[in-house]
Amino acid sequence: MKAIILFGHGARDPRWREPFDRLAELWRQQHAETPVELAFLEMMQPSLEEAVASLSTQGATQITVVPVFFGQGGHLRNDFPVLLDACRAKFPAVTLSATPAVGEDLAVLQAIVDFGARKT
Amino acid sequence: MKAIILFGHGARDPRWREPFDRLAELWRQQHAETPVELAFLEMMQPSLEEAVASLSTQGATQITVVPVFFGQGGHLRNDFPVLLDACRAKFPAVTLSATPAVGEDLAVLQAIVDFGARKT
Repeated sequence: MKAIILFGHGARDPRWREPFDRLAELWRQQHAETPVELAFLEMMQPSLEEAVASLSTQGATQITVVPVFFGQGGHLRNDFPVLLDACRAKFPAVTLSATPAVGEDLAVLQAIVDFGARKT
Repeated sequence: MKAIILFGHGARDPRWREPFDRLAELWRQQHAETPVELAFLEMMQPSLEEAVASLSTQGATQITVVPVFFGQGGHLRNDFPVLLDACRAKFPAVTLSATPAVGEDLAVLQAIVDFGARKT
């Protein structure tokens, strides 16, 4: 079974995660056949490993991790591959793949431009 | 004259800003009549104040600041209003307004969901 993890940075303020909760809710409404979990790099739970464990328990064998970051800096270039490899070692029955950051996607950038245009 | 500032967090890795440069470029292609500047909270230039100064010099009198953040945590709830007020005090001839974070926009979230769906 396929599954998806929406992976964000995390922040101290619990309200920071609201858009992430909304993202997961949108995903569930539109792609109910593909379980989704959020995961955070720091300051919020669950961790990537906890999210993989949860989806694996639900029967996921192929998990795609989508970094919900704009830019690919040190977190995505250095920290994230290490976390991903640790999860691969810990869950050998699960195939884990990662997409580029959502900020690399032209449609996401266009949605931001359109948002700015509506507000200007 | 109206103008827009796309305001991001900033990061140590200079490659982190690539999506922001792409955003500004898209904006210029599609909304050439409304000057755009990037600005960053920390670790990257220009600052919000430098971006407002630059646009003001170009003749901008109404500037909309769009926080290119997913979540509204401490940075947007605490640091950003202080920066904005400092700019208002320093540039009294410019009307500065701010939108919610782009992560509050349903179309932006939908574009992220669609990206995930294409990659899963």
